[in-house]
Amino acid sequence: MPVNLVAPEPHQLHGVAGVKLGPVAAGIRKQNRLDLTLVELTPGSRVAGVFTQNRFCAAPVQVCRDHLSRSEIRALVINTGCANAGTGEPGLEDALATCEVVGKLLEVAPEAVLPFSTGVILERLPMTPLLAGLPAAQQALAQNHWPEAARAIMTTDTVEKASSRQITLQGKTVTITGIAKGAGMIRPNMATMLGFVATDAALSQSLVQQLVREAADQSFNRITVDGDTSTNDSFILMATGQSGMSEITSVSDADFVRLREAVIAVSLELAQAIIRDGEGATKFITVRVEEGKSTEECLKVAYAIAHSPLVKTAFFASDPNLGRILAAVGYAGISDLEVSGITLYLDDVLVSEKGGRAVSYQEADGQRVMQQSEITIRVCLGRGAVADSVWTCDLSHDYVSINADYRS
Amino acid sequence: MPVNLVAPEPHQLHGVAGVKLGPVAAGIRKQNRLDLTLVELTPGSRVAGVFTQNRFCAAPVQVCRDHLSRSEIRALVINTGCANAGTGEPGLEDALATCEVVGKLLEVAPEAVLPFSTGVILERLPMTPLLAGLPAAQQALAQNHWPEAARAIMTTDTVEKASSRQITLQGKTVTITGIAKGAGMIRPNMATMLGFVATDAALSQSLVQQLVREAADQSFNRITVDGDTSTNDSFILMATGQSGMSEITSVSDADFVRLREAVIAVSLELAQAIIRDGEGATKFITVRVEEGKSTEECLKVAYAIAHSPLVKTAFFASDPNLGRILAAVGYAGISDLEVSGITLYLDDVLVSEKGGRAVSYQEADGQRVMQQSEITIRVCLGRGAVADSVWTCDLSHDYVSINADYRS
Repeated sequence: MPVNLVAPEPHQLHGVAGVKLGPVAAGIRKQNRLDLTLVELTPGSRVAGVFTQNRFCAAPVQVCRDHLSRSEIRALVINTGCANAGTGEPGLEDALATCEVVGKLLEVAPEAVLPFSTGVILERLPMTPLLAGLPAAQQALAQNHWPEAARAIMTTDTVEKASSRQITLQGKTVTITGIAKGAGMIRPNMATMLGFVATDAALSQSLVQQLVREAADQSFNRITVDGDTSTNDSFILMATGQSGMSEITSVSDADFVRLREAVIAVSLELAQAIIRDGEGATKFITVRVEEGKSTEECLKVAYAIAHSPLVKTAFFASDPNLGRILAAVGYAGISDLEVSGITLYLDDVLVSEKGGRAVSYQEADGQRVMQQSEITIRVCLGRGAVADSVWTCDLSHDYVSINADYRS
Repeated sequence: MPVNLVAPEPHQLHGVAGVKLGPVAAGIRKQNRLDLTLVELTPGSRVAGVFTQNRFCAAPVQVCRDHLSRSEIRALVINTGCANAGTGEPGLEDALATCEVVGKLLEVAPEAVLPFSTGVILERLPMTPLLAGLPAAQQALAQNHWPEAARAIMTTDTVEKASSRQITLQGKTVTITGIAKGAGMIRPNMATMLGFVATDAALSQSLVQQLVREAADQSFNRITVDGDTSTNDSFILMATGQSGMSEITSVSDADFVRLREAVIAVSLELAQAIIRDGEGATKFITVRVEEGKSTEECLKVAYAIAHSPLVKTAFFASDPNLGRILAAVGYAGISDLEVSGITLYLDDVLVSEKGGRAVSYQEADGQRVMQQSEITIRVCLGRGAVADSVWTCDLSHDYVSINADYRS
């Protein structure tokens, strides 16, 4: 059961001028479920992406990087059911062949197509149903198909993840709409499993590139379900320029500041949705580390807590076995950490200070917070003025069930 | 259910001349279970230890380090039920008070006593039952109480962990006997939760110190259950010199070489026993990484695999979803890793090479190996000549149950 997450109503997802989506059921792995999505972008759109740092990056990720570096992008093709990762040279050929067919259908160059795959690793892409499904996907292309596209990119996700908002820039309504998928193998490193955000704002290519990185850093790069960085993480920002506004070219433009805020808000909502729908999640946990010397050490501590199976199972059990959090702080890898300077809060309950249990701490207070579905762990390191947060979920029986049964 | 692990028969655990053990049920956390052990060492014994690198190290660890640095050691006192960690200054006083009482009972200085605690973190040591139990523990002191001591140091362990062997040095029978405990919060960094190995060999202090570190590095420092480094990890080597042999003082002495081999063998058996009895374990997994450039990078890859919840749940399910192993290799943090040079074996089955699935690989072969209770994952990096191994277990429903219910 996802934590306080419901799919947006279709009318809440605004179409983005210049973006059409065609989601279909191609039978790639299972019959009768949406599993293939074609996205067509209007000419002149600017696209940028960030991708997994996993050295075993999937074939489509390699192709995306190459095509982004040398072509205007006019289309995306996204399949679930198979990640096309750990597939070597043949996998690369499959991804390129897909781009070739999409290019012919849409009358654009193959390198104007970005391919994305998600699903099982180490298996070849089922090319026959995939290619056979593309004409139907082209037929389905429509500006209002965001809800179906959100569903079509899901694997072990239980809820569609989408976010949309509108702002006014230069007197024009500008739309930002995005979708994402991911529930397990989530510890994005530059991006999530798959995230796509589109806007009809007009932005220079360099600003699109800067913004995609910034948005990823403040959203997808701050979440973890199980610490496993995927082979296929991709996050794409598309700006079609179809809103009628004139192009923003400077980072100091007030319009850019407002657009950036909106794009980051959409990205963060998508990233947090992934945690709320984390495999087996019953709790949504914010790990906030304050008073650090650097972002790096704040994140070290935050991820040590967020990855600890012992911390995560205690949250699943609503058991305030909070010494496990201190243990994680202690092994986070800060070699000159003075434990006497550390303070630990659970929401607003002071749990520990001066290396021991706080005198005021009552187990009943910890218990009360642990029973909530949304909890903030706050660690003050007493070393500096830097703070950072990551978001994670608990570790439940269902995580084991889902991952023990995923392929069968 | 532990994986191919049974407690040794009492007669298999040889007493060590100069070492007496007194395990009793003191009612520290639960009634009617052995939870307090006193160990008395003969005068002239040499003792050395290695301890957790967790910055939140427990009070007894701090006391052990101090006492080892400035006193001959004559006694150990070990309690379960409470870790005396995250207890600040009061916790330190509790550990010192325990040494004080033990010192008086055995007529040795307080600093000749090493205290050890294991159990829940962030709670004060229950001093009343602990101190009240010490006279009975003194009464129980006997050379043949290794089996009961192995039981008395257990927490979530389901099987006693002990190992013993005898070798002949200088015509004398020399005994090495050890016990250990630990099942969760296991990713030792210098030592395991608690491990104690005693020998009646005669060794100089510097050789005891060297050997304890070497034995830890080749055993307890190569295992992981859940990646959580405990606040209380301690591994102690005691050499009483009571076997009648003359003291070994040189590392190049052939007797030292043979003794080292035996001590490491006992330590490794204890460390592997911890994995076999890992919380919820159904599989014993050896992760061997070969052809690395350095030990460091071999261990990075081995631990990335051994800590991946996705790999561990796949092993629980006996599902050869082996792409998850490649993904872990990919995110292990070797930035110049060429995936085309990597070869992956499951026992003797070649699974992957050249960045993709091996042509000869049949899912049925992977399935057959996955159903075994003991499995070796072998990754050849194709970068150098260094190899190293770590041992781990799978991640099952029972791990979640045990850790969700531990305190309640």
